[in-house]
Amino acid sequence: MSIENGTPLALLSPKQVREQIRSGQWKANTSGVASGYVQGNIVILPKAWADDFLKFCQMNPKACPIVGMSDEPGDFLLPSVGDDVDIRTDVPSYKVFHDGVFVEEVHDITSIWQDDLVTFVLGCSFSFEEPLIADGLEVRNITEGVNVPMYRTNIACRSAGPFSGTTVVSMRPMVPKDAIRAIQICTRFPSVHGAPLHFGDPAAIGVHDIAAPDFGDAVTIKEGEVPVFWACGVTPQVALEQAKPPFCITHSPGCMLVTDMRNSQLAIL
Amino acid sequence: MSIENGTPLALLSPKQVREQIRSGQWKANTSGVASGYVQGNIVILPKAWADDFLKFCQMNPKACPIVGMSDEPGDFLLPSVGDDVDIRTDVPSYKVFHDGVFVEEVHDITSIWQDDLVTFVLGCSFSFEEPLIADGLEVRNITEGVNVPMYRTNIACRSAGPFSGTTVVSMRPMVPKDAIRAIQICTRFPSVHGAPLHFGDPAAIGVHDIAAPDFGDAVTIKEGEVPVFWACGVTPQVALEQAKPPFCITHSPGCMLVTDMRNSQLAIL
Repeated sequence: MSIENGTPLALLSPKQVREQIRSGQWKANTSGVASGYVQGNIVILPKAWADDFLKFCQMNPKACPIVGMSDEPGDFLLPSVGDDVDIRTDVPSYKVFHDGVFVEEVHDITSIWQDDLVTFVLGCSFSFEEPLIADGLEVRNITEGVNVPMYRTNIACRSAGPFSGTTVVSMRPMVPKDAIRAIQICTRFPSVHGAPLHFGDPAAIGVHDIAAPDFGDAVTIKEGEVPVFWACGVTPQVALEQAKPPFCITHSPGCMLVTDMRNSQLAIL
Repeated sequence: MSIENGTPLALLSPKQVREQIRSGQWKANTSGVASGYVQGNIVILPKAWADDFLKFCQMNPKACPIVGMSDEPGDFLLPSVGDDVDIRTDVPSYKVFHDGVFVEEVHDITSIWQDDLVTFVLGCSFSFEEPLIADGLEVRNITEGVNVPMYRTNIACRSAGPFSGTTVVSMRPMVPKDAIRAIQICTRFPSVHGAPLHFGDPAAIGVHDIAAPDFGDAVTIKEGEVPVFWACGVTPQVALEQAKPPFCITHSPGCMLVTDMRNSQLAIL
């Protein structure tokens, strides 16, 4: 992302970020931009599938926390999450699926927009990593400059219509003392995955090779650290792959919608 | 404790419990009596030592959480913790120390009371075990009907005058999912040890044989469980042993002061 008038990326306003994305100047991931503001995972589905997907999210709130959605099918403006948000143009990169199969990656979905599409904005771990770091905790994937490691587990989601599957988790290694503090901090943010689901033995949740994540990148686990596992926003994407709706659009990994909501507004305390 | 008019022990009021103790009818431990009410560890010291002990508690609040103390030296009534509390008679069993050496166990300290004595009431794990159980978590020492296992650690206390030492911890084994929930629940109770200090590898905090606690009884650790460690109210007793004040009185283990404060009133949320 270009630095506007010398403003560091973290200090750009969400509106400035979206303007650069909309104009085609920024097509990459949004990690670290508009510090303090909520970034969202995006799922766009036809109305005929959206009701069951909404139910799936409501039944699996730790993995699929809804922080916003379109008021009516076909609405491409999302005033509830940001002043001028146009979901057709304001995400840096989109993935398009037909019948559950990935078809193409695009930077604008105006030409393929349909009047029956419903948009879901789901909470993302960027929102809880920020208060962890502000508290002095190390977030290893950020220190090592890689994507967080994510794993398929044996923790079943509750099913809703065609949507089912198992929970995907993200992992951050910490010494136990820091893990306890992270549990306290994340408890304040139930709408961005909340407290971890598990720590310690990966096999207990069906993760058999911690060095080989199913998504993202492996990170170093140091002596004395335990892996700490959070429910992850990739869970709904896996459920979508299995449900195979005829048409579906998501954001590309890491290329999020930057909203006008502040992370602190998601805290319950 | 005798059952008054058929009332189960848990349903006795704190005042009823104290009356039975004061009259000499009850001289044993207070586990499970007057459910819902705060029970306190007791430390009684001469004024000349009390100021430093107070400072030690303030500097080590997780291990030594003060929930009440006498208004003035020599006061044996403690109206701030209970309507009619007389600390000379209302604890079932006391331990008396001279120069840090245990001298005798007594059930009434009226005859040895001094005008310069200051009483401290410290929070106790009974207060957080109750909400853990109410939430459906298993507390192993209660299930197995034994005293909680306690261990000396290498976690240094901050020193104050003659008082110093390392932290003593209590341990309750849990599966990680339950440990995460216990961390959330105990976080609400900072004045009764709060969130755990550590979980997992005992050696990381200097505990070398989990099967051989330094105080209390060993409990079963099942497959898939990790030991979870809380700061423990035995910490100030160890500091007292090392400081060797000329005169000191504590409660006997498990034989607590039953106060009129409710456990729920200690919750910060």
